[in-house]
Amino acid sequence: MTYSTVAAFEAAIAEPIAPDASATAQARARQANLTKPPGSLGRLEEIAVFFAGWQGRARPEIAQARAVVFAGNHGFAVHGVSAFPPAVTAQMVANFAGGGAAINALAAAAGLELQVVPLDLDRPTADFTIAPAMSEAECLTALSAGAASVAEDLDLLVVGEMGIGNSTAAAALAASSIGGRGADWAGPGTGVDTTGIARKIAVVDRALALHAQAAATPFETLRRLGGREIAAIAGAVVRARQLRVPVLLDGFITCAAVAPLGRHALGHCLAGHCSAEPGHARLLAALGLEPLLRLDMRLGEASGAAVAVNIVRAALAAHDGMATFAEAGVSGG
Amino acid sequence: MTYSTVAAFEAAIAEPIAPDASATAQARARQANLTKPPGSLGRLEEIAVFFAGWQGRARPEIAQARAVVFAGNHGFAVHGVSAFPPAVTAQMVANFAGGGAAINALAAAAGLELQVVPLDLDRPTADFTIAPAMSEAECLTALSAGAASVAEDLDLLVVGEMGIGNSTAAAALAASSIGGRGADWAGPGTGVDTTGIARKIAVVDRALALHAQAAATPFETLRRLGGREIAAIAGAVVRARQLRVPVLLDGFITCAAVAPLGRHALGHCLAGHCSAEPGHARLLAALGLEPLLRLDMRLGEASGAAVAVNIVRAALAAHDGMATFAEAGVSGG
Repeated sequence: MTYSTVAAFEAAIAEPIAPDASATAQARARQANLTKPPGSLGRLEEIAVFFAGWQGRARPEIAQARAVVFAGNHGFAVHGVSAFPPAVTAQMVANFAGGGAAINALAAAAGLELQVVPLDLDRPTADFTIAPAMSEAECLTALSAGAASVAEDLDLLVVGEMGIGNSTAAAALAASSIGGRGADWAGPGTGVDTTGIARKIAVVDRALALHAQAAATPFETLRRLGGREIAAIAGAVVRARQLRVPVLLDGFITCAAVAPLGRHALGHCLAGHCSAEPGHARLLAALGLEPLLRLDMRLGEASGAAVAVNIVRAALAAHDGMATFAEAGVSGG
Repeated sequence: MTYSTVAAFEAAIAEPIAPDASATAQARARQANLTKPPGSLGRLEEIAVFFAGWQGRARPEIAQARAVVFAGNHGFAVHGVSAFPPAVTAQMVANFAGGGAAINALAAAAGLELQVVPLDLDRPTADFTIAPAMSEAECLTALSAGAASVAEDLDLLVVGEMGIGNSTAAAALAASSIGGRGADWAGPGTGVDTTGIARKIAVVDRALALHAQAAATPFETLRRLGGREIAAIAGAVVRARQLRVPVLLDGFITCAAVAPLGRHALGHCLAGHCSAEPGHARLLAALGLEPLLRLDMRLGEASGAAVAVNIVRAALAAHDGMATFAEAGVSGG
């Protein structure tokens, strides 16, 4: 699967795709008959109904589940916006391959297959303070790499990223998609101090000014202010919706990557967690997403969403495994 | 293990027991060397260090983990404080035995052995608006039943309860232990309306008035305002501390059961979740406990804490499985 033209990508975003109404209704009816007071499992009940709708079956399950981590490097990294050098992106990709990163352990604990997709790490995007981050062809290639990572038989997709400096691109995308300026969205990321945050704000504001007159389409926003790993996330999420694969979004950067798509294109997504990055809570609110977890994580690489998969598994286990009032002979059904 | 006298129980509460300082320090040092920015796994890092300290090993693990659900019936249930009849307590115990309850599915999903301890269900406690809920002997028996449920080789204990009406006893215990009156702590529980809440408030205030002059010791508070399942939770938590077994507390009732013990006796406890019951958030704050989850659950029967076990497992998997900077050849260690 590839997005060979800009029009094909924009058409995919615009497709009207909704959860299965019948499976949703059946799952709701089942929840009402399980041996517990109505609503007493809270969000676990909502999760089960959500998965029923998107998977199109009253008793959803997670057999095939994948976490995909896209990696990319950024031209604006020369401005000193990260506590780590850009070489760390490739080093961490090697660490993923060697099984030593947080996402390796967390994906295994959650029963997730892990796929790592490095995108031209030796060829950073252009510095978006002086030019669009990517050409049209480069952006389409990244979107298509994302789409290609989504298999039709997946029951759940987790998306995340690795890219030194990319919380700066995320701040620019959030500002462009939701509103505000650099100061509203730039934060400490994985570890810069107040001087570093000031540099991030300046870089974001210069990028926003440079691209202010460009068309505010999802594609142009991703192409100008994003990066390869960010566009790949957007491509994967759009493709997952076409295949009705439910998605767990990871942190601030992942959510900023899908913000240009608009809320209507995110009906199949749950927010895995709210990170410690200050902009993340506001971005989630703007996207209408209520996170499953708030554990002060701020690592990226799909780590928070991978932990949240355990909550989804618990929700589906209760939905599928519990007895009804009639089956159990309990009063109150 | 039994608490054969009131003095033995109070002495166990007062024992000075702290996490292992060496294991704690080793776990902190390990976290600082893993391939991630320091602190970027947020609460997962704290959980790993907490378990290291209480288990007394730098790389804690969860091989033997148990959820215990204590069940009891309450004399004050005659005042119509629940949406369900008292017979449901025994029906739900049968449902636990049959494997059809939420906790069956959630314990299995979290890799927990489930133990259900019904406590004289056909003999409710006395109505605490006219007498102490239990005699000294009854309370010691319940405390000892709780203590007996804690095996020495457990790596983790989850405690929860089932008892129609027991959120009313919990409100009385919270008011007595933390301060305030019925209106500050009585809520909808698993489903009463505003009329039902008004009845709960009145019942709690009558009980508080009746027992106001009693000694404010943990034992007397549990004996007068608690119930068998509630005292059993307290006995289990005190025993777990003596054995250095880390505990995940469940909802409002579980937390109210341990509130009389005082914060100093709860160092080995984490709050599994914050429930939808309005008093739970305030009670957790008063006990200095920050919940791992907020999923609007309000079922009891250890369900929220069982879900939280998955977070603990993820935390320990990352702590144990990740590579150090040196091992992985990543810059920044």
